[in-house]
Amino acid sequence: MRTQIGIIGAGPAGLLLSHLLHLRGIDSVVLESRARDQIESTIRAGVLEQATMDLLTEAGVGARMKAEGALHHGFELAFEGKRRRIDLTGLTGHSITVYAQHEVIKDLVAARVADGGKLRFGVSQTSIHDIETDRPSIRYHHEGEAYELQCDFVIGCDGSQGVSRASIPQALRKDFERVYPFGWFGILCEGPPSSDELIYARHERGFALVSTRSPNVQRMYFQCDPKDSIENWSDDRIWAELHARVDSHDGQKIVDGKIFQKNIVGMRSFVSNTMQHGRLFLAGDAAHIVPPTGAKGMNLAVADVRVLTGALNAFYVENRTDLLDSYSATALKRIWRAEHFSYWMTSMMHRIEGASPFDQQLQVAELEYVTTSRAAATAMAENYVGVAGAQAQA
Amino acid sequence: MRTQIGIIGAGPAGLLLSHLLHLRGIDSVVLESRARDQIESTIRAGVLEQATMDLLTEAGVGARMKAEGALHHGFELAFEGKRRRIDLTGLTGHSITVYAQHEVIKDLVAARVADGGKLRFGVSQTSIHDIETDRPSIRYHHEGEAYELQCDFVIGCDGSQGVSRASIPQALRKDFERVYPFGWFGILCEGPPSSDELIYARHERGFALVSTRSPNVQRMYFQCDPKDSIENWSDDRIWAELHARVDSHDGQKIVDGKIFQKNIVGMRSFVSNTMQHGRLFLAGDAAHIVPPTGAKGMNLAVADVRVLTGALNAFYVENRTDLLDSYSATALKRIWRAEHFSYWMTSMMHRIEGASPFDQQLQVAELEYVTTSRAAATAMAENYVGVAGAQAQA
Repeated sequence: MRTQIGIIGAGPAGLLLSHLLHLRGIDSVVLESRARDQIESTIRAGVLEQATMDLLTEAGVGARMKAEGALHHGFELAFEGKRRRIDLTGLTGHSITVYAQHEVIKDLVAARVADGGKLRFGVSQTSIHDIETDRPSIRYHHEGEAYELQCDFVIGCDGSQGVSRASIPQALRKDFERVYPFGWFGILCEGPPSSDELIYARHERGFALVSTRSPNVQRMYFQCDPKDSIENWSDDRIWAELHARVDSHDGQKIVDGKIFQKNIVGMRSFVSNTMQHGRLFLAGDAAHIVPPTGAKGMNLAVADVRVLTGALNAFYVENRTDLLDSYSATALKRIWRAEHFSYWMTSMMHRIEGASPFDQQLQVAELEYVTTSRAAATAMAENYVGVAGAQAQA
Repeated sequence: MRTQIGIIGAGPAGLLLSHLLHLRGIDSVVLESRARDQIESTIRAGVLEQATMDLLTEAGVGARMKAEGALHHGFELAFEGKRRRIDLTGLTGHSITVYAQHEVIKDLVAARVADGGKLRFGVSQTSIHDIETDRPSIRYHHEGEAYELQCDFVIGCDGSQGVSRASIPQALRKDFERVYPFGWFGILCEGPPSSDELIYARHERGFALVSTRSPNVQRMYFQCDPKDSIENWSDDRIWAELHARVDSHDGQKIVDGKIFQKNIVGMRSFVSNTMQHGRLFLAGDAAHIVPPTGAKGMNLAVADVRVLTGALNAFYVENRTDLLDSYSATALKRIWRAEHFSYWMTSMMHRIEGASPFDQQLQVAELEYVTTSRAAATAMAENYVGVAGAQAQA
């Protein structure tokens, strides 16, 4: 089989890239190791920047997001028993939409299927070949048969554990990593929202986040030991912990609900400063990971795809290679901004084991500052909505 | 002997307080363990916030500062071989004056002497008594004689190692501290300025700061091991190190001069959250220390004195005690803002031994951000000029 663009991974990056290329008349094949119902049900992030919303809408896959997603104009910071609002729209002119990543995936899969897009689920033994030539290929197995997909370019959208990044010689790569000594315990519960907007809480007991999925389903998280087990957490213990961390001194309380899912995720930061080699390009989690505190993961994947789509289009339409050549450099500006922001917000909001009383007071002092200085609040807001820094506007 | 206000320490805090009280008709005595020529020649900080300048000017001790100090409207950040300017005045409407702390001390001593103020230099064996009564006293020795100074209030302006803070029972105090694993190697040299404005440099080899004292005398610093010895640093080695850290890739070079003083200072952050007990109040370094990176030390001392002068004046004129009662809480808002800022700027600019490549990239990412985002640059600038955060405007 032959295509123009071979895409490994049917996450938001791979699916959106395939869809955007299709709109420009560029043919692609998407190979995914998991089953369709698996990628459509795995719970991940849920905050879309306005640029992400705009891109999905312009690409004709934003209708359900617009109907079912919740537009938010701010969020709340809870600390020292009080709550203070960051007015995203007032400070930046931009807003965010709370709409789960697996819903975006459903919309993209539906669009690719409707357009006759070539998606292969459940592939295995995927390997990448000849990326230093102009005829790279992907070999894989599907339903017991071995295949080779010949293409002009291979785009690795297969996440941090996928084969793509590992196909760039180690000697050419420069990787950066930070592993955090804590995780997030996440729950989904039935019940009304606790707040009109997300609440990010810093408490001596640890971080907590009150988010939402719909008027009837809520998403909440609290900082935990990444090696903890969900069996150690009864529903009662979970609610007691969330109340202790989020409820305000003046009586604002989160609303309990019926918990129907529990999970624990670890947290790390990772950047591969080499996002391309020969005819192989990386996008999304294959190239970079952020802790979820800044809500940047999916948005960065979409931003990579935006740059890559323009570069591939310029190659096919104008025979230009300069945009492909500068892909890593262009994408990394936004990536490092998001990496720093995610690290900063994580460090300010989480209980750091072994932190001195001085360092704990610094967290409170910084929260006081970002909630009382217009400049500092704007800096936080422009990062959260994804428009921070002239250098990051690529 | 009897006075209204017994002040321990003739640094900027003690001298300015004595002068401001005098202007309000309140009598004080200042006791200092060092000799006058010692305090008038010890090299310390040199950046005055506009509020500090304004206060000195209003108090009639700003004439020489205005004539000899250098008004600066911005500073430069050097990193990755480039230089970018923070436009303090453009971003905040405020500016700073570079004028050495010992010059401020000379001006204040001269004013106190001219007004017949009671200054005692070279006192020893100072101790504080009966602060839980309304008749506290200070006992000390001076020129071989023992004295007791009876007063209404004792103000401890005797720095971090002085007797004042130690006179508040340990059980009542809540201290916060962070010691940094690096120091600053400082030089004074004869020669022209390297730049119209201060340069704060972040380099893989470590931090450096290019400052100035006058058109003919320059002050420069570079990060060093706090246990290093000045004997290890020949003039040639010092200049090589400064050039390596500060010179830009496009050919901007610092200007060598004849070095006539070398010193090494350690760096720490410290806050006593208990700045008062009974009739004893702490001001300046006696209550808090910042690393010099944010240029906040003397400015915080002056801010404490501003609050304290108002509170003491309200006590004598209106018989009010509420402003004295709330002194710590009022002063600590500004102090914690400055502590956080000083920590932040220190952490962003210094080489941190053992920092991962990821953490090093975060420093660069943050510098890229503060020099390209108006919001982030404003946040940095408003802290530097001392007007950050509504909460800190006390």
